[in-house]
Amino acid sequence: MTRRAVSDRTGATRRQLLIGGAVAGLGAAAAVGADLMMNRADAAADAAAPPMNGEQMVPFHGVHQAGIDTAAQAHGVFLGLDLHDGVEREALVRLMRILTDDAARLTQGKPALADSEPELAGAPARLTVTFGFGPGFVARAAGAAPAWLAPLPVFGIDRLQPELSDGDLLIQVAGDDPLTVAHAVRMLLKDARGFAALRWTQRGFRRAYGTERPGTTMRNLFGQVDGTANPEPGTRDFDRVVWSDDGWMAGGTGVVIRRIRMDLDKWDRLDRGGRESSVGRTLANGAPLTGSEEFDEPDFEATTSIGFPVIPAFAHIRRARGEDGERIFRRAYNYDEHPDGEGVSESGLIFVAFQADVEKQFTPMQRRLDQLDLLNEWTTPIGSAVFAVPPGCAVGGYIGETLLGS
Amino acid sequence: MTRRAVSDRTGATRRQLLIGGAVAGLGAAAAVGADLMMNRADAAADAAAPPMNGEQMVPFHGVHQAGIDTAAQAHGVFLGLDLHDGVEREALVRLMRILTDDAARLTQGKPALADSEPELAGAPARLTVTFGFGPGFVARAAGAAPAWLAPLPVFGIDRLQPELSDGDLLIQVAGDDPLTVAHAVRMLLKDARGFAALRWTQRGFRRAYGTERPGTTMRNLFGQVDGTANPEPGTRDFDRVVWSDDGWMAGGTGVVIRRIRMDLDKWDRLDRGGRESSVGRTLANGAPLTGSEEFDEPDFEATTSIGFPVIPAFAHIRRARGEDGERIFRRAYNYDEHPDGEGVSESGLIFVAFQADVEKQFTPMQRRLDQLDLLNEWTTPIGSAVFAVPPGCAVGGYIGETLLGS
Repeated sequence: MTRRAVSDRTGATRRQLLIGGAVAGLGAAAAVGADLMMNRADAAADAAAPPMNGEQMVPFHGVHQAGIDTAAQAHGVFLGLDLHDGVEREALVRLMRILTDDAARLTQGKPALADSEPELAGAPARLTVTFGFGPGFVARAAGAAPAWLAPLPVFGIDRLQPELSDGDLLIQVAGDDPLTVAHAVRMLLKDARGFAALRWTQRGFRRAYGTERPGTTMRNLFGQVDGTANPEPGTRDFDRVVWSDDGWMAGGTGVVIRRIRMDLDKWDRLDRGGRESSVGRTLANGAPLTGSEEFDEPDFEATTSIGFPVIPAFAHIRRARGEDGERIFRRAYNYDEHPDGEGVSESGLIFVAFQADVEKQFTPMQRRLDQLDLLNEWTTPIGSAVFAVPPGCAVGGYIGETLLGS
Repeated sequence: MTRRAVSDRTGATRRQLLIGGAVAGLGAAAAVGADLMMNRADAAADAAAPPMNGEQMVPFHGVHQAGIDTAAQAHGVFLGLDLHDGVEREALVRLMRILTDDAARLTQGKPALADSEPELAGAPARLTVTFGFGPGFVARAAGAAPAWLAPLPVFGIDRLQPELSDGDLLIQVAGDDPLTVAHAVRMLLKDARGFAALRWTQRGFRRAYGTERPGTTMRNLFGQVDGTANPEPGTRDFDRVVWSDDGWMAGGTGVVIRRIRMDLDKWDRLDRGGRESSVGRTLANGAPLTGSEEFDEPDFEATTSIGFPVIPAFAHIRRARGEDGERIFRRAYNYDEHPDGEGVSESGLIFVAFQADVEKQFTPMQRRLDQLDLLNEWTTPIGSAVFAVPPGCAVGGYIGETLLGS
């Protein structure tokens, strides 16, 4: 059974259609400067020119922040910052007003105020900037922290490095063009540095724009189809899993970011059958071992002719599955860094999960996986952080105003 | 005067049209497996689907190696390897036969032999793999090294780090999809590790596929248009600058790879006029200060109303310009790494220059720039390597056979 058609999952989510559509139309018209107009005219004359993804924009303003229900872009940079001593509520308002202004401009293809390289801002390529607040940020704002806003419990499989974990402020910068992303990261960090220092940076990638049809589930560096069980943006299911309706967090969500090192050399020693059993899905198209298509519902009761479960007891998809409330929305990125010494790779997954309540939705699942999940043999969490992602804002407002506004 | 139309500079170079055209046609037909066929059928039914850049292939076999006159892809990874002790001529033949086979398959969208993640190989997205030999490789092959195959002379501006310099074997992996590039790098390094250890890795990026029209000159992280003076692939001019006609190097070229750190924080303190004077070109479109369009010929004699040169004596384009023989073909990538400590960026340029004779073409230019170039104020070379890039090979042959074949 095909649970949903892939072609439904394009870049335009319900939020963008209902809320952002008008804004996008206006923004697009306003942002088309002389250069782009010229490019367009030339492009029309040149039938071979591909459509310019670089001009595509994701609306910044709205009920929710962008970069969550936005179809995942090719490049994601995650910045964890620590607030300087003495940066309290009033300074946080200034910080978030500045960063909001930067994000609102850059995502619409316009230079930041006093942008040092304005020419690098003209190709947004679906740039989004998303902010999250750590426990320290909410404490300095003298706000009421969601009960789940704290480091995750310690899991037996964790080998966490403090320099890849926690932080007061998260900035997620994602887009389809790496130069645009690099420029946005630099502008945001320059404006943040009077208030906060960079604690960690994680850079990740997925398939580039133009490699696959929009909506294709990503593959990780193990070669696995990764993220099939996600709720689909724009559905009631997604809204229930992701958006909070609680106080200043209403319209916001919680995010868990974990850096999962993947031991590719050890993975190499596992044969194809073993690899498929460890997850419970085929490598070819991500179908559950009891099905033939990616979105077929797994049959956890099915047994082989000699009575063993087709999807083994230790398989990742069996262990990850919980009660109905225990669901998350994954928006992960691969990473691939310079290997040290004799290694051939230093690679893995920047696991990114959004859910309204981290403690109720993510933690029980992670506890089950910690206890038994064959994938643990080849994966090690080395970084972990939890942030409260506040709701979006309207034009003239700023991200964090529901927490910081008087 | 517009020296050439931008629309001439598409992905298909003369080499690909004349030599590789037929191969590309055959390869494309052969490589389209069931999955891609299905995707295509689905895509035809979905008018909104963009053209699939992921399916595009650059021919591997030919007179020259690919990845030189190929329109630069979005992602470039440069690997410098040191040969293990005891790896001599016979082992080098085995190594290059294996790596050639890997490259020939992966660039055509097929898994490497014994590929551990064959599903990651199906979207070549213009993948190219290009090999270069350092002095140590040629010595072990007991070959005649080109006179220029040696570390560059020491320049006063250099602050070279050995761990970012030199090496016996270069593998340049470039493509428009970061996952495809990561997979290819891993397959190549796995097959090389019995023969050589990784000495350095450099990862760089340019604009993504779909951000700009093909042929747009890239911008670096200073915001400058970078590479305007390049000869154009497919012209006699390009052939003369790039291809060697000397012995086993006939059809090959020389490559200089230098890692140039860019001090963006210091650059921030320079105003727009100062930035334009330092290079001699406008930031808006890269036109020389004496012209209005990017490809206008600079007028080095022009003076201001009070008699000063319009393009200053210290400007980069004036200093870089040499005698007619002193020309190079640039194919650079930007880099942007995790900053250390308080810094906001650790960024720069992976400068990549191809030329038939490094000593005659590159070194005199670099010597002039070392003596006087205002850009030196904001840039520091921290890595440097020179490799002999052998010619391409036919089906059944291998890269390096003109050096290693008996």
